[in-house]
Amino acid sequence: MRILGIDPGSRATGYGLVEKQGNRLRHIDNGVILTGGEAPLSERLGIIYRELGAVIARHAPQVVAIEQIFLARNALSALKLGHARGVALLAGVHHQLPVYEYTALQVKSAVVGYGRAGKAQIQEMVRILLNLPEVAQEDASDALAVAICHAHSAGLNQRVAQALTAKP
Amino acid sequence: MRILGIDPGSRATGYGLVEKQGNRLRHIDNGVILTGGEAPLSERLGIIYRELGAVIARHAPQVVAIEQIFLARNALSALKLGHARGVALLAGVHHQLPVYEYTALQVKSAVVGYGRAGKAQIQEMVRILLNLPEVAQEDASDALAVAICHAHSAGLNQRVAQALTAKP
Repeated sequence: MRILGIDPGSRATGYGLVEKQGNRLRHIDNGVILTGGEAPLSERLGIIYRELGAVIARHAPQVVAIEQIFLARNALSALKLGHARGVALLAGVHHQLPVYEYTALQVKSAVVGYGRAGKAQIQEMVRILLNLPEVAQEDASDALAVAICHAHSAGLNQRVAQALTAKP
Repeated sequence: MRILGIDPGSRATGYGLVEKQGNRLRHIDNGVILTGGEAPLSERLGIIYRELGAVIARHAPQVVAIEQIFLARNALSALKLGHARGVALLAGVHHQLPVYEYTALQVKSAVVGYGRAGKAQIQEMVRILLNLPEVAQEDASDALAVAICHAHSAGLNQRVAQALTAKP
């Protein structure tokens, strides 16, 4: 299963692709879509949508994972984030990909094993889990983290489903 | 000039089309895109994008006008609104339409003539200005209001441009 993790933002949107083969995780690609802070918001959203579409076309993921947001610094930053996140969700929907959402707590727990891990710890664990030569850029690393979270959860969901089916 | 006003929301997105001919405004169409609160957010965004695209295809507006948001009740409602608004902006961009943003103060001043007008006053003024048989649904009326705001501003911008060109 190939998973596309997305960390949306109106200025920088991180993406990360991870392939899950049995219990093993393989890194496929990661990067950051920069939109430039100067262009009008509508144009920046157009860039995010187009570039995510190109990433999906290039790597053909089967599923999209994205962080679920409950809190933001303030209403204005939430509004900006919402624009980028809405466009990222739409890119998934338009490619007929199921979209899974995970809370920051779920992502941290899946990657580091505990929910209060700091940014640097998460980045280093992403590097180790995916056998990267060096730590990925922050937004790309966050995108890989949510993809890893989905890989772990998907495995868990599958085992739960198997356990339920195996019941007499 | 045909103007599409949009009032985005994750559950209900209003739209309103107005034709400006000289100093006269003509109502073309208005309506509300309901997404149903039950579907996943990504699907609802897909509906908003698709239906706005259908409205644009049906009425061929030359420009999109949308309210600019600075404040929201709280970060969570701002986030939700941002998703819908991002998708609405994208629908405009994907149809090569210029998108203009107006503050609530600008919209109220343009429609009612003063910035502290209440909702009912705005709805009634929209009805009178567009010669509607009855007040439009709230979200559709808000969309018509921002379209009217653009019509007035566009006229003003044109007169300013003419005045500048006429200078010796």
